[in-house]
Amino acid sequence: MDYDRYDRIRAVQWQGDHLRLLDQRLLPQEERWIDCTSAAQVTQAIKDLAVRGAPAIGIAAAWGVVLAAKQGEPLVPALAMLRAARPTAVNLMWALDRMKARIDAGADAAALEREAQAIQDEDLAANRHMGELGAGLIAPQSGVLTHCNTGSLATSGFGTALGVIRAGVASGRIEQVYAGETRPWQQGARLTMWELVRDGIPAKLIADSAASHLMRSGAVQWVIVGADRIAANGDTANKIGTYQLAIAARHHGVKFMVVAPSSTVDMATASGEDIEIELRESAELLSVAGRRTVVEGADAWNPVFDVTPADLIDAIVTERGVIERPTTLAMQAMFGR
Amino acid sequence: MDYDRYDRIRAVQWQGDHLRLLDQRLLPQEERWIDCTSAAQVTQAIKDLAVRGAPAIGIAAAWGVVLAAKQGEPLVPALAMLRAARPTAVNLMWALDRMKARIDAGADAAALEREAQAIQDEDLAANRHMGELGAGLIAPQSGVLTHCNTGSLATSGFGTALGVIRAGVASGRIEQVYAGETRPWQQGARLTMWELVRDGIPAKLIADSAASHLMRSGAVQWVIVGADRIAANGDTANKIGTYQLAIAARHHGVKFMVVAPSSTVDMATASGEDIEIELRESAELLSVAGRRTVVEGADAWNPVFDVTPADLIDAIVTERGVIERPTTLAMQAMFGR
Repeated sequence: MDYDRYDRIRAVQWQGDHLRLLDQRLLPQEERWIDCTSAAQVTQAIKDLAVRGAPAIGIAAAWGVVLAAKQGEPLVPALAMLRAARPTAVNLMWALDRMKARIDAGADAAALEREAQAIQDEDLAANRHMGELGAGLIAPQSGVLTHCNTGSLATSGFGTALGVIRAGVASGRIEQVYAGETRPWQQGARLTMWELVRDGIPAKLIADSAASHLMRSGAVQWVIVGADRIAANGDTANKIGTYQLAIAARHHGVKFMVVAPSSTVDMATASGEDIEIELRESAELLSVAGRRTVVEGADAWNPVFDVTPADLIDAIVTERGVIERPTTLAMQAMFGR
Repeated sequence: MDYDRYDRIRAVQWQGDHLRLLDQRLLPQEERWIDCTSAAQVTQAIKDLAVRGAPAIGIAAAWGVVLAAKQGEPLVPALAMLRAARPTAVNLMWALDRMKARIDAGADAAALEREAQAIQDEDLAANRHMGELGAGLIAPQSGVLTHCNTGSLATSGFGTALGVIRAGVASGRIEQVYAGETRPWQQGARLTMWELVRDGIPAKLIADSAASHLMRSGAVQWVIVGADRIAANGDTANKIGTYQLAIAARHHGVKFMVVAPSSTVDMATASGEDIEIELRESAELLSVAGRRTVVEGADAWNPVFDVTPADLIDAIVTERGVIERPTTLAMQAMFGR
């Protein structure tokens, strides 16, 4: 399958001595790159959402550790600083744990560089494999709806949910893609549409609140989303709005698929109730594109993730395989305890 | 009850020889008024969304007929022009039918002016009455979620759903209000928050996609919305996103209330399937606040209303009374055939 046609974007690029990040806050208006030469800069880029998407955050953090090692910084504080950059995505913790294991084993900067590269390369391979697994679940001539951005920008490349969509389009199973705007940051509008248009994939943007009306029209057979953390029972934390889509999908008999590398699975978290949900500033909702849209004195409630219970999920796709109708037992069988 | 404290905004003002409309596209940044001296200008203001909200559109259109009469314009074409300004809101048709009945009975401009004033006055009285009826359904210490703008800006004053919220706050039943942004026009963010902050009502803005997460938290007991058209079986057309809220409310055991004057009820439309849903330009989704946010070449699907089936509605409140769990029989008993 001609996947390369659908995999031409690399948002996290190691340059041998520094890390280049495509600033996702400025897309699609501007393609500006940020050069990070220290772990502190990488931490800031994660905090500021210049780099976003659970897998991409993990990969960037791994390169942050390499930068600290190359500069002779103490690595324990660097790990702690990077770990604290975002609370919800478990890939960040997973990547840093993997780097820490190498540090504890006495790895030098060159060995850490190889480890970070392995994390990045494995993520890309996982995405391509997940793409095939997920697309295999989709019937020909399907329409699908996705949320947020889970594409090349959010990963090492190809994407998780968007990887399944790319593979589904490449194999002729998916005929039409709908992308939710994903307020307040508009990742769907700004980033996913950017990727889909670049790839020439038939796509339409919708308001997040139009999803149920779309489902009722019969235009979509699957909702396909990524994940920031998957608990041991299959409960899935992902971008705010995912839970609402899962409820709507079940109501309409539309199937719901979660696509994420196994590094997103957190078997130490029993259920979604134990997942910390990041609450961000009101200001993100009170302004749009830097312009105040809401009256002065107004307040907002701005949770940026939510939890979709496992019983609303039809399939969890990781590079290790597909779990349909996830349960703790099925999760344990694939991911251990 | 001190309703006047919560009823200080008049967005549609007859000035004796022209109609003043508060331009709702510019709020909350700017309070600019539009002076209409002809039916054509009123039509344009409705088309351009300078005036919006089903009852306000009907009232403005009635004044448009008065302007045509005062200018000696032929009234049949004026009625047709005004009627075609927006397709979904039935109040527009209702108000114009009422004006047409007076025209057919030989009314002069002065009589038409009295009729338009009656339409406007009756709307305000209906809103106050609906406020009491709706608030009576709400238990003390409740939190409520609303969508779009259904307040003084959308009506002659006080509001429909927002009128119930005002009455609920005034009577101490409602402690916290949440307002959905209501993409793409942001009526909730721009207009409802403007009204709530002016009234000193405790309110928080949320992203439309955060509604389910909010409901799961237990913070809201009722979703309260307006309507653009209520069919004979209780199916309700309203702002895009309403249907999604109704599905989420039912999923969480949150109650769902529709508030609208009886002029919104269209017994000639059997069910929601017969309601025309206005599809607007992609451009409204591709830009935010006049700035392009989506890559060039992208397409969008922009339905601006949806239909909530009666079986997801716990109460329809009109000035004639409350219908719980609406059915065609109950609707016929209250509204005739």
